[in-house]
Amino acid sequence: MQDTLNALKVRLGTISDLEQASSLLHYDQEAFMPMGASQARATQMATLSSVSHDLFVADEVGQWLEELRPLEQELGHDDNDASIIRVVRQDYERTRKLPTEYVARAAETYILANEQWRKARADSDFPLFLPWVRKCVDLAHEYAEYQGYEDHVYDALLDQFEPGMKTREVESIFTPLRDEITPLVQAVAASGIKIDTACLHGQFDPLAQRSLGNVLVSAYGFDVNRGRVDEVTHPFCTSMSRDDVRMGTRVSAQRINENLFSMLHECGHALYDQNIDSCFDRTSLSSGCSLGLHESQSRMWENLVGRSRPFWHWAYPMLQAYFPSFHAVGLDDFYKAINTVNPSFIRVEADEVTYNLHIMLRFELEKAMMEGQVDLAHLPQEWNDRMQTYLGVTPPNDRLGVLQDVHWSFGSLGYFPTYSLGNIISVQLWETCRQDLVDLDAQLARGEFAPLLAWMKERVHRHGRKHEPMELLRKITGAGIDAGPYVEYLKAKIHDVYGI
Amino acid sequence: MQDTLNALKVRLGTISDLEQASSLLHYDQEAFMPMGASQARATQMATLSSVSHDLFVADEVGQWLEELRPLEQELGHDDNDASIIRVVRQDYERTRKLPTEYVARAAETYILANEQWRKARADSDFPLFLPWVRKCVDLAHEYAEYQGYEDHVYDALLDQFEPGMKTREVESIFTPLRDEITPLVQAVAASGIKIDTACLHGQFDPLAQRSLGNVLVSAYGFDVNRGRVDEVTHPFCTSMSRDDVRMGTRVSAQRINENLFSMLHECGHALYDQNIDSCFDRTSLSSGCSLGLHESQSRMWENLVGRSRPFWHWAYPMLQAYFPSFHAVGLDDFYKAINTVNPSFIRVEADEVTYNLHIMLRFELEKAMMEGQVDLAHLPQEWNDRMQTYLGVTPPNDRLGVLQDVHWSFGSLGYFPTYSLGNIISVQLWETCRQDLVDLDAQLARGEFAPLLAWMKERVHRHGRKHEPMELLRKITGAGIDAGPYVEYLKAKIHDVYGI
Repeated sequence: MQDTLNALKVRLGTISDLEQASSLLHYDQEAFMPMGASQARATQMATLSSVSHDLFVADEVGQWLEELRPLEQELGHDDNDASIIRVVRQDYERTRKLPTEYVARAAETYILANEQWRKARADSDFPLFLPWVRKCVDLAHEYAEYQGYEDHVYDALLDQFEPGMKTREVESIFTPLRDEITPLVQAVAASGIKIDTACLHGQFDPLAQRSLGNVLVSAYGFDVNRGRVDEVTHPFCTSMSRDDVRMGTRVSAQRINENLFSMLHECGHALYDQNIDSCFDRTSLSSGCSLGLHESQSRMWENLVGRSRPFWHWAYPMLQAYFPSFHAVGLDDFYKAINTVNPSFIRVEADEVTYNLHIMLRFELEKAMMEGQVDLAHLPQEWNDRMQTYLGVTPPNDRLGVLQDVHWSFGSLGYFPTYSLGNIISVQLWETCRQDLVDLDAQLARGEFAPLLAWMKERVHRHGRKHEPMELLRKITGAGIDAGPYVEYLKAKIHDVYGI
Repeated sequence: MQDTLNALKVRLGTISDLEQASSLLHYDQEAFMPMGASQARATQMATLSSVSHDLFVADEVGQWLEELRPLEQELGHDDNDASIIRVVRQDYERTRKLPTEYVARAAETYILANEQWRKARADSDFPLFLPWVRKCVDLAHEYAEYQGYEDHVYDALLDQFEPGMKTREVESIFTPLRDEITPLVQAVAASGIKIDTACLHGQFDPLAQRSLGNVLVSAYGFDVNRGRVDEVTHPFCTSMSRDDVRMGTRVSAQRINENLFSMLHECGHALYDQNIDSCFDRTSLSSGCSLGLHESQSRMWENLVGRSRPFWHWAYPMLQAYFPSFHAVGLDDFYKAINTVNPSFIRVEADEVTYNLHIMLRFELEKAMMEGQVDLAHLPQEWNDRMQTYLGVTPPNDRLGVLQDVHWSFGSLGYFPTYSLGNIISVQLWETCRQDLVDLDAQLARGEFAPLLAWMKERVHRHGRKHEPMELLRKITGAGIDAGPYVEYLKAKIHDVYGI
């Protein structure tokens, strides 16, 4: 039995090494690769992915997983080896349900769809993208049929990113949340209060911004000996092993927000990846529990810490030292400027409050797309109508509207809800954490992040993919997912910033 | 038959993609990787190498290669597809001769030997490295026995790096070359002429150095859209495909030489790799013909161009613009400073004339090591004795002597001779090229490098590994390898610089 487990682990190690190499190819493409290499790089990545896929779906892997059932039982659900067997078996079964022909066809379609999306977005030309969004929706349907689902076709899509999460459950979370948030946004608008954000705009030396960013993420606990930061077009974080976690950030010389908060956000992802238990090294369990849980960490370090009063009590003198223009700005004014609520067109630039409305809009559209309830040719109008309803603004073109996100072009329908789930979970974890760390605000105000990180590491990070997300959340908080604390958090923030 | 060729090419494509991914992992390790990732990276690279090895030595590859013999015959020796079949069959046969157990054991030994070499060099502690150099020599013997050889055990080692080259042939080139060069070095020393090299030392802004380096390699014809340059500890060049060729360079703020000539040198390698015909993409033929031929290109762009009067006639005003201290230095004095002959301990810092004596010393020692003619425990003394005989200097410690090079620690016995072969070949190609480009000096003096690059591309680069090195040399020059032109070149340079 131990031999079989070893054989499985050797295979998982090979697959993991290939996937981590692929992560490096991807990171390098975003951060360093010369433009002329894109075709060769795409081919290399396709090859790595196909070789690792073949090694994973091989019959012997299924045999080993069957043979290991008694060992898994004997070890018990919480044992690490048992968890490896269990989680890998789930992955194996899901992957084996997909015909190789489908996997190859989908991969090829997404490459072309992504190319066309880039062109369509650049030219704000939705009709160019329309045939490809059709293909992507068709592929999503095929995927759902291969995987099967009980209640809703969208369940199969969600499950890729948030294992165990159901469409009805997301609806039951999102609908009341939308009903809470929309009036908040309206109340801010109705108040007529305009917060001065001029201090966030100006000329900020990019090297100084990078340097400050490095100081802040180091203070958070990012281990620079096991990671690095580079400039990229779209910020992201990726892991080439827990000992090599890299963040891509974006620096604007005119807007201090850009690099500052993308660093704090990506650092939240990076801290998760750096702190997964090494017992899961070279297995597929050495990554985040789900996209929602991962996002809970990035949003926590970006918002709950990084846009809080205590944090800036500590960090503001440093910001002033790097950028003397802030000597003329009071801490309270700065705090309000970084916490402004302001409906806008672009999701990734949205504030904490309106952000979720962007997500709900996408969730509703995706559901309707999968249900066949929306004519895909009318997506731009459907998008704009919802923008007007939820946010009171209408995008002037599709580049600032339905074409803004990359996700559909690589087939990631079902991904968006995890962003809001992450927001919700972040506050649930935060509130639980505060029960243990009663001194948390004071710690943050002293720049002491180690207790918070240690708490998250112990309860969240180290487990990797061992638990399903809702199982983990319940273990930590004693409750299921609940948007209540998140709404309270938003209300308190708006009260603090707008006095309403 | 075409189906078999396609099957072979698909397999070669997969292997090539894996190897190019591995090249990126290596490049990244030298240029970007955080220190803490070294163990994970070593494992990833070992996995990629083992997966591609397994795919290559598979029985079906041998069957395809056998089935393709009639097609190869029919297409003829110079056909590209026939060349792919022929060269891959040679690689296949060589690789299949090595038991998997040997390959794994050797790889593991070299990792440990390299670690111990690093420690030994840092502490100048040869006895620490001695057991590992023994293991590496033993592995080289095993390798030679697996491959077989007709005349000399060292032939099998040479053949890895310079296909077809024999020990006796290297001796017949090196012995007269040594007899020509040693008196040149002695004559320079006896002349009592000391060239002032003070202008090469000072304070040179590293960013300005990097910028000048980029300007120069772009002028040479390095396509920055299909490559890049980064700072590393030991300069090198590697190819992740002909569309992604990267150079690592080293910048010293105190010594202008360091970055300048390492850029020009690595650029020679890069130009070769960028200009291999795309018909060899994703095959093992998409690399240099041999290490000697590759080095002929790096040495040509570094020395025959980069240390020539015409080149500096063009480049010197630019150097002065970047580094105004050179306004106080005449072009003639600068030219002499970068062409000083000065015996020194370290090979990679040696001038054009003494460099080859460093190589010959290593060749003689390696031969003696393989013949069992030298007690390995006495290597430091043997090394130092030869340094005194050839160069008139004795290293004060083994760090500056026998421990300076990495090669033995990763089992690359047989590699060193290719450095001098490269020097020799560079001048043979250069003299042939001058017969076509009668205006070459004037072109260089105008900064026109395109005709020279086009000539090298047409005759050398585009062929990749299609031809054996001596076959290619004969095709181009009409003659075999001949150190005569190289000796004449050195004599002329010494006459120009020292007036002797």
